[in-house]
Amino acid sequence: MESPLAPLIKQLQRLPGIGPRSAERLAFVLLSWSRTDVQTFARTLVDTHQSIIYCETCFNICLTSPCTICCDPTRNPHSLCVVAYPQDIVALSKTNAYNGLFHVLGGLISPLDGVQPDMLRIQELLKRLDLGQFSEVILAISPTLEGDATALYLTDCLARFSNLSVTTLAFGLPVGAQLDYADPLTLQRSLEQRRQI
Amino acid sequence: MESPLAPLIKQLQRLPGIGPRSAERLAFVLLSWSRTDVQTFARTLVDTHQSIIYCETCFNICLTSPCTICCDPTRNPHSLCVVAYPQDIVALSKTNAYNGLFHVLGGLISPLDGVQPDMLRIQELLKRLDLGQFSEVILAISPTLEGDATALYLTDCLARFSNLSVTTLAFGLPVGAQLDYADPLTLQRSLEQRRQI
Repeated sequence: MESPLAPLIKQLQRLPGIGPRSAERLAFVLLSWSRTDVQTFARTLVDTHQSIIYCETCFNICLTSPCTICCDPTRNPHSLCVVAYPQDIVALSKTNAYNGLFHVLGGLISPLDGVQPDMLRIQELLKRLDLGQFSEVILAISPTLEGDATALYLTDCLARFSNLSVTTLAFGLPVGAQLDYADPLTLQRSLEQRRQI
Repeated sequence: MESPLAPLIKQLQRLPGIGPRSAERLAFVLLSWSRTDVQTFARTLVDTHQSIIYCETCFNICLTSPCTICCDPTRNPHSLCVVAYPQDIVALSKTNAYNGLFHVLGGLISPLDGVQPDMLRIQELLKRLDLGQFSEVILAISPTLEGDATALYLTDCLARFSNLSVTTLAFGLPVGAQLDYADPLTLQRSLEQRRQI
């Protein structure tokens, strides 16, 4: 006997981090919602998915292109922060520590997953830099295997812009970390990149 | 600047166990789905919510009433298992250890949450028992404060059925439990209800 909730449970299981048990639990919770609430949820999902586009300048997600960040006159127009995904912009914005513009690559180089450099928005990045507007590029890319490969590739591409300051985020111990719990690679990096106090 | 995903993130946060960070992550994953996939997801959600009804006999969720369990001629028609929620039937069915019928109370007595006995399907249970079809009632109710109160209340209600065998699930150490990690109440119950081997 298949549960009448089976189709919904199957759909919920497609979400990341939702296993069979969580999907079942979510399905029963959704069942307990009012019909209006469920319809609002479903409509928001479809509407949001349909209305989101990519900014033609920085490739961030937005409702109108160019996006609100690219159009913001209070931002520093000479600083460009290169990230892999739109969600990285969300994370960086929360710090309130950066007030320049962004460029979203749309992924990281990963030959194993079939992601080659020409599938990322690197040509578009070089075109933006060709305009001569930017004096600084910050590579804000996760220190993973794919991230390091992408940063290395970008560094090569950016070498021809001689007046450009190219930096990457600092890698080391996260705030609040216990030194004895840190993994060896993180410790190695924070040793290599130690700095005078 | 509000994210264009904000309405979707807000809706996702209404799900249990989904905080702001998870909701944001889910929103970006849903954004990466194809339009067809998102529409299927939304339609399944609304359709399932609209098509689910409650069985008029046992109050389990179903697509047609009486439900497939109540209509199943291979089930033992003399045994009735009383549970709080439809999801408890799912859990019990997975054991393959019970082949009788069910009765869903629709909740547990909880004066603090405003749930009084008359808000549960206890009258409907007594009416089913009045028919004289059942020789056994199993109270499969969670051993929580509310569950214990409900089981106690039911025991009183069922006292007038003199020919009825009324039992509750066994409470004790779960399979695989470490005795030294078990909480005192569980240990106390498994001591009190110890049995000859």
